[in-house]
Amino acid sequence: MPSPLFEKIALVGIGLIGSSLARVIRRENLAGHIAISTRSAATLARAEELGLGDSYSTDARDAVRDADLVIVSVPVGSSGAVAEDIAPSLRKGCILTDVGSTKASVIAQMQPFVPEGVHFIPGHPLAGTEKSGPDAGFADLFTNRWCIFTPLPDTDAEALEKLSEFWRRCGSNIDTMDATHHDMTLAIVSHLPHIIAYNIVGTADDLETVTKSEVIKYSASGFRDFTRLAASDPTMWRDVCLHNKDAILEMLSRFSEDLASLQRAIRWGDGDKLFDIFTRTRAIRRSIVEAGQDTDAPDFGRQAAERK
Amino acid sequence: MPSPLFEKIALVGIGLIGSSLARVIRRENLAGHIAISTRSAATLARAEELGLGDSYSTDARDAVRDADLVIVSVPVGSSGAVAEDIAPSLRKGCILTDVGSTKASVIAQMQPFVPEGVHFIPGHPLAGTEKSGPDAGFADLFTNRWCIFTPLPDTDAEALEKLSEFWRRCGSNIDTMDATHHDMTLAIVSHLPHIIAYNIVGTADDLETVTKSEVIKYSASGFRDFTRLAASDPTMWRDVCLHNKDAILEMLSRFSEDLASLQRAIRWGDGDKLFDIFTRTRAIRRSIVEAGQDTDAPDFGRQAAERK
Repeated sequence: MPSPLFEKIALVGIGLIGSSLARVIRRENLAGHIAISTRSAATLARAEELGLGDSYSTDARDAVRDADLVIVSVPVGSSGAVAEDIAPSLRKGCILTDVGSTKASVIAQMQPFVPEGVHFIPGHPLAGTEKSGPDAGFADLFTNRWCIFTPLPDTDAEALEKLSEFWRRCGSNIDTMDATHHDMTLAIVSHLPHIIAYNIVGTADDLETVTKSEVIKYSASGFRDFTRLAASDPTMWRDVCLHNKDAILEMLSRFSEDLASLQRAIRWGDGDKLFDIFTRTRAIRRSIVEAGQDTDAPDFGRQAAERK
Repeated sequence: MPSPLFEKIALVGIGLIGSSLARVIRRENLAGHIAISTRSAATLARAEELGLGDSYSTDARDAVRDADLVIVSVPVGSSGAVAEDIAPSLRKGCILTDVGSTKASVIAQMQPFVPEGVHFIPGHPLAGTEKSGPDAGFADLFTNRWCIFTPLPDTDAEALEKLSEFWRRCGSNIDTMDATHHDMTLAIVSHLPHIIAYNIVGTADDLETVTKSEVIKYSASGFRDFTRLAASDPTMWRDVCLHNKDAILEMLSRFSEDLASLQRAIRWGDGDKLFDIFTRTRAIRRSIVEAGQDTDAPDFGRQAAERK
């Protein structure tokens, strides 16, 4: 058996992402030692029950000591506090990375605390499900998904290559861009969809003329697709909204402008315009399936999942 | 083998719904004869290649002659023209139903043409996928899905029971309500979600700062969930928008109002409000899964579908 890629990997945060990392690190033999840390004693105990690591601590400073890779997987609003906490215990030469959904804010929060000689490489694996917590993770979560790095101007090339190799062995493809472009891109492909999904589910919840039980009963006619994203972790998404505000507001305003125009076409019975709008969007779905970013099975393969 | 439920069923329209009906009618032995009709000669030829029926005609009047059940499965904007066309050929005592997503408009279009002695029962199976055409259908489409009838004041109870039995044998559960309530309910559970999905995919398609290839590449982070609904049949959805206008405009205006309030919370950094909004929506997802209206598999069971 070849020696592992890292001697000791410390996972700070052991939710969906952290616990998926723990599982794939073990399966792929990427670390000699997996140290797990989370603030909640109950969550930590659950991680230990699941056998996700080799050592467990509610004190992140303990966990990161002597680690040559530290992965912070916490809601983005906590990044700064975690960085300040662990900074004194980071080993010289270690790689410090995160998995946060916003990058400019995480860099602004963490970088001031990064000690000389520690390689801070902001990262974002585009992977997740609507479930949260250490039980929700699985080793295949990152398979065929993108991991985006937003390196800083002085990022060490060797450290970046080593971290890239780590994520490739987790199953991911690697991409690199600047933090501002990342935040704008994610605002449209991830943040806006989640916000819209939360919003429409809220609208349905508030109706008087249609009961909640009817909404639930008949949800297979479209609505249920939105409820998956709207079941995502509220703390994570509150933080995303607070920490990628400008890009999200920009996308929201474009979305609302387009919706007003579509609404006008409905009001005035402009069938040709509606047909045009409804036609161009089909091509994007086809491209996503061709790019291997979604299944071509009808209805996301739900029937297949149900038959199992 | 017991005798079939109907002597002859005529299917007018052989797209996703019509062709799924043909398949389940055959499998469950619900008709002595399946007559298939569609205006397009190419689609009709494909239906014949697939062996979906016993007779084929581009002339709906031919197909419905002597049928004791006629199911019209066409875009709702064509309902009136189809009713006018077939009316003179309908056999006395036959049941005439449809599968349209809007009911008040379909009733207004079809009822004036229904001859004395024909039982017109408007219906709507809440089932579908993003695929269209005779190849897209499958016999299980209606399994565990709702079929809603919106009977008219003079609907014959025996005919309604016979049609209910038909849909139950197709795998569906039956519900009954008035057409106005149906249209309001569907506006929130189906029409609004589709319109929002089309809109967000359009917004993403129009960006200058984020390229289309980036949107496709990174779509697994949320966006792809919307592209499935937005890949639905444009003609069908144009007609839905034109024929359920008032209810859709009402739901759109509630949605936009809620979105403006959410946007304001983001702009002013109101984390508590965001957390509240993002928390209440989780319960609905849970209820939908408990009601058997969606799979509990993470990510709609896509991983399971991909592994197959």
